Amino acid sequence: MTRPLAIALDFGGTKVEAALVDDHGTVIAASRHRRPTGPTATSDELEQAVSEVVLAARAAIPDGTPFVGTGIGSAGPIAVADGTVSPLNVPAWRDYPLASLIAALVPDAPVVLRIDGVCIALAEHWIGAGRGAHNLLGMIVSTGVGGGLVLGDRTVPSPTGNAGHIGHIEVAGFDDPCACGGRGCLEAVASGPRTVAWARARGFEGTTGEDLAAAHAAGDPVALAAVERAGTAIGRAAASASSLLDLDVVAIGGGFSRVSPALFEHARAALAERVVFGFVTRTRIEPSALSDEGPLVGAAALVHRPELVS
Amino acid sequence: MTRPLAIALDFGGTKVEAALVDDHGTVIAASRHRRPTGPTATSDELEQAVSEVVLAARAAIPDGTPFVGTGIGSAGPIAVADGTVSPLNVPAWRDYPLASLIAALVPDAPVVLRIDGVCIALAEHWIGAGRGAHNLLGMIVSTGVGGGLVLGDRTVPSPTGNAGHIGHIEVAGFDDPCACGGRGCLEAVASGPRTVAWARARGFEGTTGEDLAAAHAAGDPVALAAVERAGTAIGRAAASASSLLDLDVVAIGGGFSRVSPALFEHARAALAERVVFGFVTRTRIEPSALSDEGPLVGAAALVHRPELVS
Repeated sequence: MTRPLAIALDFGGTKVEAALVDDHGTVIAASRHRRPTGPTATSDELEQAVSEVVLAARAAIPDGTPFVGTGIGSAGPIAVADGTVSPLNVPAWRDYPLASLIAALVPDAPVVLRIDGVCIALAEHWIGAGRGAHNLLGMIVSTGVGGGLVLGDRTVPSPTGNAGHIGHIEVAGFDDPCACGGRGCLEAVASGPRTVAWARARGFEGTTGEDLAAAHAAGDPVALAAVERAGTAIGRAAASASSLLDLDVVAIGGGFSRVSPALFEHARAALAERVVFGFVTRTRIEPSALSDEGPLVGAAALVHRPELVS
Repeated sequence: MTRPLAIALDFGGTKVEAALVDDHGTVIAASRHRRPTGPTATSDELEQAVSEVVLAARAAIPDGTPFVGTGIGSAGPIAVADGTVSPLNVPAWRDYPLASLIAALVPDAPVVLRIDGVCIALAEHWIGAGRGAHNLLGMIVSTGVGGGLVLGDRTVPSPTGNAGHIGHIEVAGFDDPCACGGRGCLEAVASGPRTVAWARARGFEGTTGEDLAAAHAAGDPVALAAVERAGTAIGRAAASASSLLDLDVVAIGGGFSRVSPALFEHARAALAERVVFGFVTRTRIEPSALSDEGPLVGAAALVHRPELVS
């Protein structure tokens, strides 16, 4: 192998993963390693988990292969100016210097840290549903609702590094309390758990997104209504974001985005209601074209494609 | 005078103005001319109005003064790629080639067209409330609610040229029908006319924003509630926008923004509710520091400060 390689690191609230990724965005499967993280891990345990996966990936670089550096995507909030992270669901790390830890493990090459949502958007732009788009919102609908932005073929400039929180755009007509302190945020309405809870309050007996998907496929009226509600909210948030940002594409991934193709139909229908603004209704809402490798691909783009990174 | 000069043109739904502006953002008062536009004007009348003010400004350039070009801010929608405008409230112009008209009147120098909201944001960034800010939303609260974005010290990249429509961000808890086809958009809730209409439905007998301002100053309970409602909605939209864009400053101008300082207090209180996200609550909501010259100053920035323009 002679293609240039990057180490990609994806640090999240349940696991940390690292792998080698080449300059076409291909993840080298044998180099991919993961460890659990989670709300009860100590800082030492987190450091050890990160170190193990990064060093295992580094050890997989063949002799003589060009190495371009390490890209890190982290759950937020982060502080990009000093390379620290304070992931909401990982309380042991507050203002933790993750970029410095990695620089000590993998010296003499660039280390670039960005929030995980930015990495998703970069991956969609590089090899996913946003190829050829200039203005792109990458959205993840899962336990929460997150995202990231590429505008003018570059990640959006962000003084703190936390731009892209599409989950905290408000949606008209809703008033659900949100973990951020606000009300009616998209995440409080359309995340997987919130959608399941809404259905359960109306008699649905399942407990997971998979249960809701099965009920939807079987035509259960409460499941149909729950998916319509979530999809409509997603489409309205996309319409708000596109009104502000003139988006070409909204690429949506994450486990709950696969509950049913109807989720996308409802989202597109909601966007289409903004009939007066052709620059909004032109926005394409598409399923993510990335596998579960997306976060690693995007982290690798931070160092393979520096011209895309603000 | 030897400071370099630009011609600035501001084309809106009620009037068109042109003036010379120097490279410090100073409008040369004697060169400023305006003509009415409006929904009943023919295309020929609009062309004549624009030509008269532009040629009057051009004629005021002293011999030997460096001339940098013409900047145009126009009501939207626009199509920046081909320099055409289709202002909602000026039906005689649809896909009208405004940039070409100006280039024929003022040849041999750059002509740059952007939407009016972008010009406002540029002016706030250049000489207004956003000096020193990297990420800025300029907002106008008046008959409608409009705006523009500067991100990373440049105007936001926008494939069609229409980014910045903060008035069409939805606000949770509202369901008012909006002219765009959506519901619960900020403009449908918090514009001057909508706020006055809300108060009138509750017994307020005035008909204008000025009437509402006077009633608010006198402590009228309906006026107090109306301003609280509008300010809260503005603050919530600012919180949504900052969640997405990591804003340093939201600078708010426009006639209805001056209804009462309480409008800003309510907006700031609404933003402050997003307690979990320090990158959102850090955003400063400030009154515009621009006079009614702001749109002309911003149009001039398109050619005086090309490094700020995406």
